[in-house]
Amino acid sequence: MSADAEPDDFTLHDYWRSSASYRVRIGLNLKGLRYAQKPVHLVRNGGEQHGAEHHALNPMDAVPVLVHGANVIRQSLAILEYLDEVAGPAAPRLLPVDPLARARVRSLALLIACDVHPLNNLRAMQYLERELGAAADVRETWMRHWMAEGFRAFEALLATDAATGLCCHGDTPTLADACLIPQVYNANRFGVDLAPFPTIRRVNEHCLSLPAFDAARPERQPDAA
Amino acid sequence: MSADAEPDDFTLHDYWRSSASYRVRIGLNLKGLRYAQKPVHLVRNGGEQHGAEHHALNPMDAVPVLVHGANVIRQSLAILEYLDEVAGPAAPRLLPVDPLARARVRSLALLIACDVHPLNNLRAMQYLERELGAAADVRETWMRHWMAEGFRAFEALLATDAATGLCCHGDTPTLADACLIPQVYNANRFGVDLAPFPTIRRVNEHCLSLPAFDAARPERQPDAA
Repeated sequence: MSADAEPDDFTLHDYWRSSASYRVRIGLNLKGLRYAQKPVHLVRNGGEQHGAEHHALNPMDAVPVLVHGANVIRQSLAILEYLDEVAGPAAPRLLPVDPLARARVRSLALLIACDVHPLNNLRAMQYLERELGAAADVRETWMRHWMAEGFRAFEALLATDAATGLCCHGDTPTLADACLIPQVYNANRFGVDLAPFPTIRRVNEHCLSLPAFDAARPERQPDAA
Repeated sequence: MSADAEPDDFTLHDYWRSSASYRVRIGLNLKGLRYAQKPVHLVRNGGEQHGAEHHALNPMDAVPVLVHGANVIRQSLAILEYLDEVAGPAAPRLLPVDPLARARVRSLALLIACDVHPLNNLRAMQYLERELGAAADVRETWMRHWMAEGFRAFEALLATDAATGLCCHGDTPTLADACLIPQVYNANRFGVDLAPFPTIRRVNEHCLSLPAFDAARPERQPDAA
């Protein structure tokens, strides 16, 4: 952590079940940074993310938002890269040093963050219900479809590459694990069959055994229902 | 560019109308890197991205993929970050140096890459048609909705921040412009009203006047219909 950044300078605006928030909690914990939490309830009162207070912080009306002193950082992957850049050399790295290894880690993280999660986001589900009249079973089939499709590719990228270790890349957690583990949580929540994805299951089990991941679980958050 | 990377080492597997491919063409051009193109037709023959040859390169069945010598890089934002890391100090930077500025640029890029584009991707449109029976007008309303919603937030983030210049961040193009300009192309293609987004329109006009952006336009690609 840089000399001018006290642990208590970090405030995470998050929601216990938001998987993008879950990614950032993992990153903060891996870095050993203490942070305050400001829960934003995404469902109650029509969604507190749409309220004036949160909208002023993030006009996209989304969590997570990290406030670091006077700095406001939006988008989970931008937050994680920022943490990697401002934390000192003593903190574990969320990205490896070699450019090709960094590209592999980022491409795995982006597969989840771009190709899977946005399609299953609350906003997308609300639109499907409201504008297309999609019933609950249609929406859940939709969600499972994108998760299974993404996991098929993710599993292939892990299983065919010698760089995969206990974690997605090597034996220590990276940005890729910070994205994968919350997505597996969602997959379990919505009944995706994980049998075809043995490497994903193995990495998930390993990561969840680590304190940084355990403390970030949705059910351990102060606003968990 | 690093000493061991010859310009001709770069091959971009892309498609003229793919906005994620368009981002990478902009980045390569900004860096002054010469590259070969290998078009992957996303519609013909049920989609060449699903063919055995491309699937072996990218199990997500998507473009772009950048092949750099023996290295295969997937996901447009991972490719752009990789280019920024392997190109030498003489090439223009796609990301600023300061961590907070980098976070701002990345969060703008991710707003497009996560919150807008995945919902309008070909795969999502095909699913809406095939599984939900959504007609063309329903699908186009869906697309315009996510673009307008994303642009509202993007416009606010540009218009309220003194860091915005001729480009999204300062007066030279970054990752944020490489994502924004292809999204504006899509918005025009599908009839999104851009009147409420004056800063986006101004940045778009400026960037398209630059040779690196001009040469990356879909209609200038060898596989343009």
